[in-house]
Amino acid sequence: MSRRFVAAAAQLGPIERDEPRASVVARLLALLETARRRDVRFVVFPELALTTFFPRWWIADEAELDRFYERAMPNADVAPLFAAARAGGIGFHLGYAELTETAAGKIRHNTAILVDGEGRIGLKYRKIHLPGHREHEPALPFQHLEKRYFVRGDLGFPVADFMGGKAGILICNDRRWPEAFRSLGLQGAEMVAVGYNTPQHYPRAPEHDRLQDFHNHLSLQAGAYQNGTYVIGAAKAGFEGGCELIGGSCVVAPTGEILAVAATRGDELVAAEVDLDRCREIKANIFNFALHRQPDAYGLLTKVG
Amino acid sequence: MSRRFVAAAAQLGPIERDEPRASVVARLLALLETARRRDVRFVVFPELALTTFFPRWWIADEAELDRFYERAMPNADVAPLFAAARAGGIGFHLGYAELTETAAGKIRHNTAILVDGEGRIGLKYRKIHLPGHREHEPALPFQHLEKRYFVRGDLGFPVADFMGGKAGILICNDRRWPEAFRSLGLQGAEMVAVGYNTPQHYPRAPEHDRLQDFHNHLSLQAGAYQNGTYVIGAAKAGFEGGCELIGGSCVVAPTGEILAVAATRGDELVAAEVDLDRCREIKANIFNFALHRQPDAYGLLTKVG
Repeated sequence: MSRRFVAAAAQLGPIERDEPRASVVARLLALLETARRRDVRFVVFPELALTTFFPRWWIADEAELDRFYERAMPNADVAPLFAAARAGGIGFHLGYAELTETAAGKIRHNTAILVDGEGRIGLKYRKIHLPGHREHEPALPFQHLEKRYFVRGDLGFPVADFMGGKAGILICNDRRWPEAFRSLGLQGAEMVAVGYNTPQHYPRAPEHDRLQDFHNHLSLQAGAYQNGTYVIGAAKAGFEGGCELIGGSCVVAPTGEILAVAATRGDELVAAEVDLDRCREIKANIFNFALHRQPDAYGLLTKVG
Repeated sequence: MSRRFVAAAAQLGPIERDEPRASVVARLLALLETARRRDVRFVVFPELALTTFFPRWWIADEAELDRFYERAMPNADVAPLFAAARAGGIGFHLGYAELTETAAGKIRHNTAILVDGEGRIGLKYRKIHLPGHREHEPALPFQHLEKRYFVRGDLGFPVADFMGGKAGILICNDRRWPEAFRSLGLQGAEMVAVGYNTPQHYPRAPEHDRLQDFHNHLSLQAGAYQNGTYVIGAAKAGFEGGCELIGGSCVVAPTGEILAVAATRGDELVAAEVDLDRCREIKANIFNFALHRQPDAYGLLTKVG
């Protein structure tokens, strides 16, 4: 498989609380068709791309909460997406809420997968850095209950052979933690898909509201450069459920340069040419880990408690 | 001591190979005097601020090499600098090559210190990420022999109480490694001094020459934001010994914003107001390590070999 192809972030505008999966999947299919016309071979959809960002609400009713989770992947709702990918030979990244029934009860994850151009799941990741809080905080203008509605991912930070290279996934808040990017970089990641839902307003430090786009790009660009990997970031954007989400979906080169960036906060595809061999310019030189990293000096980073 | 004060990067233009210490110290004193007039309380001088960046040359003669190192700190050459700091009540950061005589032979470090407004050394750091190579590579337009002329620092990544807060030091290449910034961040660093000598031309990947300033700022800004600390970066800049060095000296806020930046590649002071209490906006929220870091998931980062 060629290591040179066009990749894209497929940004989504708002998904309302009651928007049915079929409607969302129709939007994803439209973006996939745009991608096909632009010769794109890999498309990154956002985090929790099949529903609204439901952790913004305190949902006491379990049946109501469960509605936002997928119990199987693929499933009947997303089957058309897998079929379109197969028909077009286009790989994609998809984020979704995952519910697993076990003898001990329900386990909930914030999950994302890579699907290849033959419709096969090539990599699955469950979010490790869950932001927000666990309890209802009615004084906030909106909740951020990821620590309540998900448990920490149990798959580590995996990479997989994908699209002719090594690919990994981070989800939203993960991207701000250099440890997460480095875990992928140490395994040779050449392309990292990052879906996100990031409010414009940060109630605990509203003086930073104006910096949300800057912090998003700073994190993605530093992660790309410091690990010599492409990064494709895809936002859920716009006014959703009364909450404004940033856009800024982008394709970032292994040099940290932004190659393409979204101009709107709606459904939008931004594409750029990717040449996985260019990762070597960074990986073999300034960030040659074997020559220059000093892992025995980093003990504080893994100290627990 | 007030946690709110003016801090500055004191960028240096070139220091030629035969420039005597007295001449260099006179330049540092002039910058310190500029700082005093601008009400600056803390000044960051660059890495190896007392000499030219001698690792660019293969120096076979040991006596010739030894000339570039300090055997004591302070010493007679820099005594006027310590005296001026004391007289003005101005703290400073100074990088220099350090030579220690031991029974087993000479030990060489790339070192930097923090000196407080009473002329006392408050922190010493020896560079851990030594870039470049060990052997003579005559095919290169210039050498980068830090791996030959220095051994790896043996003091870890220390922080100290300084100027009413917690301060740390990184040296040049260290700043590109998020592990180095994080080691300081985990100890509560609120201000990190970073001196650097960074060639504009990177012979092993010259396609990145145009990106040197961008990569410098990206690394400093990400390190500041991801650890909620001020970062003060000071360059040795301009054409030195036939090699062009980038400038871009700057003061970076804990939000990652560049508050002040050099406009030249010569001797230049860039100052900005620092309020160490503002670190809390980041440290107590988005990068609240106790709430959100997942150190037991970062095992790959400290794996040796």
